[in-house]
Amino acid sequence: MSEHPTTDNEWIGGFHAVASALECGRPIRRLWLAEGRRNGRAEELTARAEAADVPVDTAPMGRLDDWLPGVRHQGCVAEVEPPREYRESELPGLLHAVDNPWVLALDQVQDPHNLGACLRSAAAAGVTAVIAPRKRAAGLTASARKVAAGAAERVPFVPVTNLSRALKRLQDDGFWVVGLDGTADTPLYAADLPSPLVWVAGGEAKGIRELTAKHCDLLVAIPMAAGMESLNVSVATGIALFETVRQRR
Amino acid sequence: MSEHPTTDNEWIGGFHAVASALECGRPIRRLWLAEGRRNGRAEELTARAEAADVPVDTAPMGRLDDWLPGVRHQGCVAEVEPPREYRESELPGLLHAVDNPWVLALDQVQDPHNLGACLRSAAAAGVTAVIAPRKRAAGLTASARKVAAGAAERVPFVPVTNLSRALKRLQDDGFWVVGLDGTADTPLYAADLPSPLVWVAGGEAKGIRELTAKHCDLLVAIPMAAGMESLNVSVATGIALFETVRQRR
Repeated sequence: MSEHPTTDNEWIGGFHAVASALECGRPIRRLWLAEGRRNGRAEELTARAEAADVPVDTAPMGRLDDWLPGVRHQGCVAEVEPPREYRESELPGLLHAVDNPWVLALDQVQDPHNLGACLRSAAAAGVTAVIAPRKRAAGLTASARKVAAGAAERVPFVPVTNLSRALKRLQDDGFWVVGLDGTADTPLYAADLPSPLVWVAGGEAKGIRELTAKHCDLLVAIPMAAGMESLNVSVATGIALFETVRQRR
Repeated sequence: MSEHPTTDNEWIGGFHAVASALECGRPIRRLWLAEGRRNGRAEELTARAEAADVPVDTAPMGRLDDWLPGVRHQGCVAEVEPPREYRESELPGLLHAVDNPWVLALDQVQDPHNLGACLRSAAAAGVTAVIAPRKRAAGLTASARKVAAGAAERVPFVPVTNLSRALKRLQDDGFWVVGLDGTADTPLYAADLPSPLVWVAGGEAKGIRELTAKHCDLLVAIPMAAGMESLNVSVATGIALFETVRQRR
């Protein structure tokens, strides 16, 4: 018989994602495997979970689908502690802890769905931290975390009091600040993206604020077909982040 | 006093998009400009609309925002005829009408929000046509068109009876068929994307079907950070389409 998941649950799906969460020592409440799908991968993960004192349970595949809709969880789902809140003062520590830090700054992204999608793209691209102004921006609500599909657990989300000041501090720390702006003259693909890097992406309707744009070392535009004015903010952010991945290969 | 928009309304927002729709001879019911924002661009567009017998009206900025939430419409919105349905038999004609045709094929994208976002990215990238199986896929519903933010008017959406057969026909017509598949060995950025090209992107949870993958000339994966299994389908599609744009520059 299966235990019921707790109510303030957060989910990670897929063997890689769950194994990686275990490896990082993330607090996992329970590991759920699909009923009747025991295989080598499931056995190996069960052994690792048990070694880390994580309880292992089974549930019908359909229930795992309900918990993680739209996620390719492969019959392997971990119920984890909700992600912790990061304080602005922790940002330098997060960035100094890795070799090639990079940051995504979200200016006025107000829709939780878009925030979640941006976090998912940021985690997939390997961004070190995502920052956003505490006011006038979507917070890390349950709805944003759900769309993030586990990414909110993987990439630290750091609310900052004043985005311009946070960008200035990063510049003082040696970061290049590049803004996505549909009206910029430089196409994304003509830009050499320096390192360490902060990408600044703007809100749904109006893009990045003028004041924020002033704090960027460079503004670039994704070149679009005639007549198209904009992309969804999470798609535009994904394109910019993965162009960085491409250039760094 | 403003006329009320009709009920089965479709919207295009932004001066470029509206001017381009006018230029293409698209049926426009009415052009709406934000009250109290007359400027040179608005005057010029008004003259062009009147020359094309399109009625011009004004509305408060807030109402334009309601009609096109999340779209940078700049106080310029056109109410257009709903996009027409394309028949599969029209696909070759659409593709032969342009110099460098390319196609986005969506396999089992079942969420209207994702379909709309994919159409928006396809239009922004300059894709010639989007095809999808008529069954087991989201249709061009009002909800999908709303997320597409006018893109459903710009890129023909062609439902096909059998996706594998449609891909085979495109191959016979000289197209290369490249599938996005998270499990593929070839990274997207290691692939030379040939022309003419069909991109095949898969559904939310399971990616492209095995049968569809068999019809691809090449499968590529977007390289992701360790532990991340997938991107949102509209983000992944955007990344693949704009890598094509980059390579073609």
